[in-house]
Amino acid sequence: MNTFGHLLRLTSFGESHGPAIGGVLDGMPAGLRIDLDAVQAELDRRRPGSGAAGTSARRESDTLTVLSGLLDGLTTGAPIAFTIANTDARSSDYDAMRHVMRPGHADAAYMLKYGGIRDHRGGGRASARLTAVVVAAGAIARQFIATAGIAVSARATEIGGATSPAAMELLMKQARACGDTLGGIVECTATGVPAGLGEPLFGKLQAMLAAAMMSINAAKGFDYGDGFAAARMRGSESIDTPQALDSALRSTTNHAGGILGGISIGADITMRVAFKPIATMMRTLPAIADDGTTCTLIPHGRHDVCAVPRAVPVVEAMACLTLGDALLLARASTL
Amino acid sequence: MNTFGHLLRLTSFGESHGPAIGGVLDGMPAGLRIDLDAVQAELDRRRPGSGAAGTSARRESDTLTVLSGLLDGLTTGAPIAFTIANTDARSSDYDAMRHVMRPGHADAAYMLKYGGIRDHRGGGRASARLTAVVVAAGAIARQFIATAGIAVSARATEIGGATSPAAMELLMKQARACGDTLGGIVECTATGVPAGLGEPLFGKLQAMLAAAMMSINAAKGFDYGDGFAAARMRGSESIDTPQALDSALRSTTNHAGGILGGISIGADITMRVAFKPIATMMRTLPAIADDGTTCTLIPHGRHDVCAVPRAVPVVEAMACLTLGDALLLARASTL
Amino acid sequence: MNTFGHLLRLTSFGESHGPAIGGVLDGMPAGLRIDLDAVQAELDRRRPGSGAAGTSARRESDTLTVLSGLLDGLTTGAPIAFTIANTDARSSDYDAMRHVMRPGHADAAYMLKYGGIRDHRGGGRASARLTAVVVAAGAIARQFIATAGIAVSARATEIGGATSPAAMELLMKQARACGDTLGGIVECTATGVPAGLGEPLFGKLQAMLAAAMMSINAAKGFDYGDGFAAARMRGSESIDTPQALDSALRSTTNHAGGILGGISIGADITMRVAFKPIATMMRTLPAIADDGTTCTLIPHGRHDVCAVPRAVPVVEAMACLTLGDALLLARASTL
Amino acid sequence: MNTFGHLLRLTSFGESHGPAIGGVLDGMPAGLRIDLDAVQAELDRRRPGSGAAGTSARRESDTLTVLSGLLDGLTTGAPIAFTIANTDARSSDYDAMRHVMRPGHADAAYMLKYGGIRDHRGGGRASARLTAVVVAAGAIARQFIATAGIAVSARATEIGGATSPAAMELLMKQARACGDTLGGIVECTATGVPAGLGEPLFGKLQAMLAAAMMSINAAKGFDYGDGFAAARMRGSESIDTPQALDSALRSTTNHAGGILGGISIGADITMRVAFKPIATMMRTLPAIADDGTTCTLIPHGRHDVCAVPRAVPVVEAMACLTLGDALLLARASTL
Repeated sequence: MNTFGHLLRLTSFGESHGPAIGGVLDGMPAGLRIDLDAVQAELDRRRPGSGAAGTSARRESDTLTVLSGLLDGLTTGAPIAFTIANTDARSSDYDAMRHVMRPGHADAAYMLKYGGIRDHRGGGRASARLTAVVVAAGAIARQFIATAGIAVSARATEIGGATSPAAMELLMKQARACGDTLGGIVECTATGVPAGLGEPLFGKLQAMLAAAMMSINAAKGFDYGDGFAAARMRGSESIDTPQALDSALRSTTNHAGGILGGISIGADITMRVAFKPIATMMRTLPAIADDGTTCTLIPHGRHDVCAVPRAVPVVEAMACLTLGDALLLARASTL
Repeated sequence: MNTFGHLLRLTSFGESHGPAIGGVLDGMPAGLRIDLDAVQAELDRRRPGSGAAGTSARRESDTLTVLSGLLDGLTTGAPIAFTIANTDARSSDYDAMRHVMRPGHADAAYMLKYGGIRDHRGGGRASARLTAVVVAAGAIARQFIATAGIAVSARATEIGGATSPAAMELLMKQARACGDTLGGIVECTATGVPAGLGEPLFGKLQAMLAAAMMSINAAKGFDYGDGFAAARMRGSESIDTPQALDSALRSTTNHAGGILGGISIGADITMRVAFKPIATMMRTLPAIADDGTTCTLIPHGRHDVCAVPRAVPVVEAMACLTLGDALLLARASTL
Repeated sequence: MNTFGHLLRLTSFGESHGPAIGGVLDGMPAGLRIDLDAVQAELDRRRPGSGAAGTSARRESDTLTVLSGLLDGLTTGAPIAFTIANTDARSSDYDAMRHVMRPGHADAAYMLKYGGIRDHRGGGRASARLTAVVVAAGAIARQFIATAGIAVSARATEIGGATSPAAMELLMKQARACGDTLGGIVECTATGVPAGLGEPLFGKLQAMLAAAMMSINAAKGFDYGDGFAAARMRGSESIDTPQALDSALRSTTNHAGGILGGISIGADITMRVAFKPIATMMRTLPAIADDGTTCTLIPHGRHDVCAVPRAVPVVEAMACLTLGDALLLARASTL
Repeated sequence: MNTFGHLLRLTSFGESHGPAIGGVLDGMPAGLRIDLDAVQAELDRRRPGSGAAGTSARRESDTLTVLSGLLDGLTTGAPIAFTIANTDARSSDYDAMRHVMRPGHADAAYMLKYGGIRDHRGGGRASARLTAVVVAAGAIARQFIATAGIAVSARATEIGGATSPAAMELLMKQARACGDTLGGIVECTATGVPAGLGEPLFGKLQAMLAAAMMSINAAKGFDYGDGFAAARMRGSESIDTPQALDSALRSTTNHAGGILGGISIGADITMRVAFKPIATMMRTLPAIADDGTTCTLIPHGRHDVCAVPRAVPVVEAMACLTLGDALLLARASTL
């Protein structure tokens, strides 16, 4: 369950405060030149302290080390294993947390699931730090899907209800000042997607994308095309009038979000992911100990005000992995 | 890709206008008494012409035939195969449609994916009729998860923007009168879910549920707990204050929707699914032929005004299948 | 676990004495013309009472009914579901067996696994009758791999130690006369297999084939190329001298059995499957009841003397399914 | 395809001459104390130069580094990632081999599969060095299955046809002297296996074990219980007379090899794996270059005379992984 994908498969490992996190990306076709600088650049977009307002102060270089799968800069068809060292993991920061379950975090859930066993250091396996693994793998997948003409980009379209960059910055500054946090929405578009990706009935492209996005920390919702807005539309308002049918189904509108019946039609794929506010705040919070007694969580450590800015490259990465997987699946099913 | 689930697996087969649709439900533990009348009752809730306003006029008895997996009323551990005959499939109704791609439907997508091969009769494999298979399997899964105390129920909370049953009925009547269709939202709650279901990192319970729901015809969005509304909330508004920790994490609120870090915490699981308006309308629509020429779609046949009423049991069924699968997965991972 | 394959997937269902057995073959590329007469002919090769010496007297027509996945004789890309009715299933024959575990059969194993639940009628799910499902699906897969130039054929090379057809017949006649049964070996060759099928490290082609063959009833061993004989050879005797390397690795010998490092090299794939003698014999056997008391099994019913003649088409079918799956997997992994 | 297992899953990575090889073992239940010294001891049994006659001279310490999944010596339920550094990888030894395909090796197969891309350094991904990853993971799995009472042990029962240790040693010495190599057979027994492991129809325990064993380098055959010998036996000779039925099916004989109908019956599981002679010999061999011209392979480097001694711990490891997986699967399928 730490593996994502059918033919292009990412197996993730590591915890927030172990020696390293990493992944194994299996299924990449052989002979693709991989630009590792581009992969590192994606990691830099995501990493804490990268400058974006509202991001954490933990200092990690997030340097990628590739252990296998490349020779002379080309993929060999073998699994690409990589690690990212945890260099700024001050585990002792978390000694006081050994018995405290933070509200809104996975702490209690892991404890309940694993019979009392839990890595209390910075969220352990449930830490958002693990999204770095996704970003690295997604950056490799991005180079693969680019060979098919696919490009993926995402941006924050809403933070705390604000929709303009200036208003978002202002809200984040205000939230930080009062020790609060914000949620928001990331919108993602994939262009150049060939028709025919996605599999009926349970491998619908939107189902694959939804599973991908809902596996990101703090994600609370997913929609595509008109999405939730479609629920309030009339059929006559929400249909794309077909203009042409060649290698794609052409229309001047894209209510469908590029997918019909679970299968891409050659139009842009548009989707949105909603994120809740970060559960860790610089204010005193009621918490609970592992013996069931209530307690108080005193704020300290290093935390983001809003997950959305750093979630943008993660959303892109999950989209790249999903589309890469769908591309391989589609290639398989030909006479 | 016509199989859903990891340990509790539904393999679906059939088309709208073949001799039968059906499924194979594999992984059900042995020794469970199955009430087939209850399964049939679920099918009756979903079937066309079941009386709900806004539903289709196709007459199908949707009678379940079980081919295997039960002996003396008990599951044997063998796969449970079942069929539902297509008795009112007037295929000749669709002769005129052989070359026409209906707008907003999977027709063109299938044609592009399968190299021009497409079952034009009533949507073929992409028909919403296939949701009957999901409902039958879900009704069996429901009886399994009931043994663990889990119950699932859903209801339409919004149709065309209306949130009261009377207003929904009125809007559907109006839409039918003017040959239009409506979208809406189904809300689903699972109670009695034990803590510990869901798997990190890519088998998060919300990811499994999202994939399940986004595989339903016409679904455009999924969220859980506070969902998309969380994007506009502050952290201080969206955290559930923990009250107790025993076999579950107790709180008087449930912003989390019963899941933290991808794992159930013993609270109710709440989720929503958004549906687009049905793409088939009783009005003339611009369409496109398989030779790329534009054409006109003359309305005829038998169609719903809104997918939401009949989607309610389908959403429940997908939730039952997903929770049954998660339950088996959780049982496996114990010392 | 009742599903075989990764991309070309057969889901099997049914028991010896239910209304029908059947399967769902998912993943077949669209647009392939299927000759259903050829599929029926394969079923006829396998069916009881088909004339071969040493085969059972149960009378089944084994008529294939296709429920989905074909339109105008072509695959549509949708799952191909089919049933084979159990028409000569005299369940009452087995009433006396409800509490008796036959020696050498799966009876006790199923009882232990499924908490006392067991279909006692003719072996239930464990019956060799289920191989008909494999044969039908394999016959469809055979038509797919033929498009890539692959042909599969098998034959009995050893029965009871005899290697000539006449000696085999004689031994079977003698065994039948004294109420005994025989084992044997089926050899299978796949020609026209392109280089590149099979996946490192755990999807090696021989590993896929071994799993396929060892899932056949009564199979006790698998080898390929020199197989077990290689254990007694010297390296200098067992290497194929390469003669040319174009789209295949050419040699005048084939110790390798067409596979090196888990990947086909373009030579014939050769393999052998060993079958134990059938455990049901026309003689009184010591047995055990489900209450743990020993008892005696009085022979009756309808049984083969040797599984090998009817296993030949089953071995072929499993090879066809496996190679079809490997072919789809190989197609997926291309830039 | 570099992942083995359903619920207990090993994902392998690395090549003979990269910086490191390693694996990710996912699905281990939480709370199990892991003795890493015992894991290292298994690695030491397998490693080259460990003293056994007929083994390679490459010097590797094969030191295990665990990156994740353990806290305070206990499994946490998170994936256990580990690496084994390649410290004695003299890649330049292989410069001359860049264009040469060694006979009997995977070289040409990989080249054909991956469009000319191939890691020529010591076999790359196909190197037997990768079995160290299996051994490490198997040693962890061994500690898990021990909690259920299962123990696994294997031994070389035949080398070059010899069956006594003294004769095996002598044959290996002779083979080394004349630059030749030998094959052999490893026999493996699992004791304490509870009844009920293995899944019908395609997850039969022998099918899982066969796939496991046939994924080991140089393995050419697998059988269990009476195995290939059963092909020459009569039914009356090959049936185990049942003596008692409690939590297991008891008999004084074990022709079945502990499995009936694909499911363990509580008796010892016995199996054999046949290995071909090592293809690299200290003698001049005809080879072929990647341009299709024939050439000569001059012997050099560091190589074993027989794979069997070092294959013993690998066979055990694959058995441990398979039985651990089957154990988790069996636990899942309970009411």
